[in-house]
Amino acid sequence: MNVYVAEEAGFCFGVKRALKIIEHLSQEGQAVQIYGQLIHNRTVLDQLKARGIDYIESLDQLDPAKKLIVRTHGIPKDEQEFLEKNKIDYLDATCPLVKKLHYIIDKIDTKKNQIIIVGDKKHPEIIAAASYASNPIVINTEEEAANLGRYKSIAVIAQTTLDTQHFKAIVSILVDKAETLQVHNTICSATRVRQQAIRDLAPRVDFVVVVGGKNSSNTRKLYNIARHQNPNTYHIESSNELKKPEFIDKIKHFRSVGITAGASTPPEEIEYARIFFKTIVKEINHGRSKREPQHRFDH
Amino acid sequence: MNVYVAEEAGFCFGVKRALKIIEHLSQEGQAVQIYGQLIHNRTVLDQLKARGIDYIESLDQLDPAKKLIVRTHGIPKDEQEFLEKNKIDYLDATCPLVKKLHYIIDKIDTKKNQIIIVGDKKHPEIIAAASYASNPIVINTEEEAANLGRYKSIAVIAQTTLDTQHFKAIVSILVDKAETLQVHNTICSATRVRQQAIRDLAPRVDFVVVVGGKNSSNTRKLYNIARHQNPNTYHIESSNELKKPEFIDKIKHFRSVGITAGASTPPEEIEYARIFFKTIVKEINHGRSKREPQHRFDH
Repeated sequence: MNVYVAEEAGFCFGVKRALKIIEHLSQEGQAVQIYGQLIHNRTVLDQLKARGIDYIESLDQLDPAKKLIVRTHGIPKDEQEFLEKNKIDYLDATCPLVKKLHYIIDKIDTKKNQIIIVGDKKHPEIIAAASYASNPIVINTEEEAANLGRYKSIAVIAQTTLDTQHFKAIVSILVDKAETLQVHNTICSATRVRQQAIRDLAPRVDFVVVVGGKNSSNTRKLYNIARHQNPNTYHIESSNELKKPEFIDKIKHFRSVGITAGASTPPEEIEYARIFFKTIVKEINHGRSKREPQHRFDH
Repeated sequence: MNVYVAEEAGFCFGVKRALKIIEHLSQEGQAVQIYGQLIHNRTVLDQLKARGIDYIESLDQLDPAKKLIVRTHGIPKDEQEFLEKNKIDYLDATCPLVKKLHYIIDKIDTKKNQIIIVGDKKHPEIIAAASYASNPIVINTEEEAANLGRYKSIAVIAQTTLDTQHFKAIVSILVDKAETLQVHNTICSATRVRQQAIRDLAPRVDFVVVVGGKNSSNTRKLYNIARHQNPNTYHIESSNELKKPEFIDKIKHFRSVGITAGASTPPEEIEYARIFFKTIVKEINHGRSKREPQHRFDH
């Protein structure tokens, strides 16, 4: 099978930075706990847990003997203030581009502006970001945009992992909703280049595999973009799923595959998928045994 | 023939206001000259000329014995300053919504903003409006928008008579061109309601007639919108053109017509067209003589 990995895929700057912070503390022998899921990738979270680095769901569960790490998606303003006020020993692994989102929202949260955040209101990034505005409206669909009332002045801002085309469609609807519309394109460049790469690749291959967490916002966007270009698109959470007979049945007659991965998907997962399609599928098609690919990566 | 006049069509507030100013001065016996074409409608300009009210093309042609009227589309900043500085006796018939455009451009013309004006760079409104910015870029097409470079901050503003859908498409392209995009939707409400009215009417009739000046920006936009919804759309400059045999040939087999008119088209023109289609076409179809419609309006 011909295997093409999207030109940009996998770990972004913010994820690499967060993992580096943890690596650094580990090497120093520092016990660590994470507030929330550091990133939305089960494989990485399991690997961390196996090394004794788990996450807490609430600040009530704080273990004072461990250093606290704030997740890449950021935390709400009052929780950040709680950490400061109580002099809790923590390191902030919030992606700097998410931090910028907080900073911009704080700055544009004036009396005259109605702040509109485009994103998933249940996603930790948006829960945290929304806390920086006094009265934000969070929308995620064109329909929700069309249903908004009219305002004198709207300031609109995007979840960093939003699909650019979707954000543009919503902005275009908002032009009718205010005399002045301030648009802050806070979609991060890692998101943009990964989306563009799969938008280019998907129509040129027989099928597409998107590797990444099911709760990873940017991975889901990659999946939606790819599926739009190529109906034979599959979202797998980890490369283990590739070996499932029902999956192999679906793809065994195809001759080319495009692979992409979310910003929280480790490079080993991408490499595993690449080698899997290069080798094992060929073997299946030649009627040989379903053995593991030769270059197996631990993950 | 079934005749439908668009729910909103013809003279807008700014045009009515300008004509009222001139009417008022005429009644006072004041000699008047207009700087530029007061509005883009040949019929109205001819009527004014017949009453001795002509327009000058340049301030060199000023007749100090006459009161000067500034056209509805506004004039460039330096000319306005020239009038003030030289204490020239003038009345400003610039549409207040065009004045607002000048005011906004002046206000947003800061060092950090790249000002982008969407409109026709040769149209008097845009020539005047652009003069209020120190370094504006005027664009009129999606292609021109796509070809722009990237800026830290863009402030975009619209010619008052722009097609809203076109402005929205351009704004959507500009989302990619700046970190911060400030959108000033200065399309006037008269333009918006007239465009919406013909957008609704055009697909429901056999053909559409748009009455208004060929150099009238808002009339051309109405024509484009109607043509997009209904290929049988005709732009006529004045109702005289309705009587032309080649026009009658084109439309005589149709059973319904939608009529709209630009913001500078007088109500008599609309009424003439309405009655024309109600009567004369019926008569032609019945093989009778091509006589004038019974309710003829002077214009």
